[in-house]
Amino acid sequence: MAIQNMNELFLHMLKDVYYAEKQIVKSLPKMASKVGEAKLKQSMEKHLEESKHHLERLEEVFQLVNQKPSGETCPAIDGIIKEAEEMMGEIKDANTRDAAIIAAAQAVEHYEITRYGTLIAWADELGLSKASTQLKKTLEEEKKTDALLTKLGEDRVNTKAKSKA
Amino acid sequence: MAIQNMNELFLHMLKDVYYAEKQIVKSLPKMASKVGEAKLKQSMEKHLEESKHHLERLEEVFQLVNQKPSGETCPAIDGIIKEAEEMMGEIKDANTRDAAIIAAAQAVEHYEITRYGTLIAWADELGLSKASTQLKKTLEEEKKTDALLTKLGEDRVNTKAKSKA
Repeated sequence: MAIQNMNELFLHMLKDVYYAEKQIVKSLPKMASKVGEAKLKQSMEKHLEESKHHLERLEEVFQLVNQKPSGETCPAIDGIIKEAEEMMGEIKDANTRDAAIIAAAQAVEHYEITRYGTLIAWADELGLSKASTQLKKTLEEEKKTDALLTKLGEDRVNTKAKSKA
Repeated sequence: MAIQNMNELFLHMLKDVYYAEKQIVKSLPKMASKVGEAKLKQSMEKHLEESKHHLERLEEVFQLVNQKPSGETCPAIDGIIKEAEEMMGEIKDANTRDAAIIAAAQAVEHYEITRYGTLIAWADELGLSKASTQLKKTLEEEKKTDALLTKLGEDRVNTKAKSKA
């Protein structure tokens, strides 16, 4: 399907991110089930709830541009999730696996951060101010989740160091 | 191949990023050839040269952990590049295609930013301070490239607005 202009490109990316959020909602419970550390598990469960809310916000954006919500297969998020699942399956040690899970979750976050950043820039270009406002709320939450994951990664290293002391 | 500990996980991710940089070096000239705007084309050509240098830095890091440089297929970057090529192929209008190319390049940058961030955290955990220093140099360059792409995206919108005024 050829893309003729910025309106169509925006819609294409909106469908891409909608598909990505759906795949993330499917994949997060699998990731969370393999987590060893309680706080990391909690944060992944919280992010699952947030992601469901992000899907609702995207549905509002579809409404704002008079389109029905629908997804478009996104090889990028499929690749990121495939890589995460492959890596986790290879690790038996719980602490090492938690490190890999944090890295995988951060790769997902960064994908979302870049895509929401793009959608916001294009919404502003197209004068879709209500859509831009909604997308910005999600972007802020994705950035907070990424920062929290960095902190949980540091906590993991400290806990491991203490257990060896 | 099972991963037993953080040393092996670090090496696994190093191979993953090495493969990713190689794919990026292959894909950037294709992307640059489809760019309409001169500054954007320049910045992609500059980033190609930087990426070749990032590969050399990764080779130094392999040396620091007494390993031969080698790549490991990374479905994430394959997906990101596949998606970029699909999207670009669908767009005839040069200005709209430039917007898509900027978005694609930023998705690549964010993938690199998250992976280098992870490698640095793990290098620090493992006491690999020389490796950490090298990886931080690359991370800073990736962040600068991402910021430059954001700026080029804004310039594109302004140029388009002026041409209509």
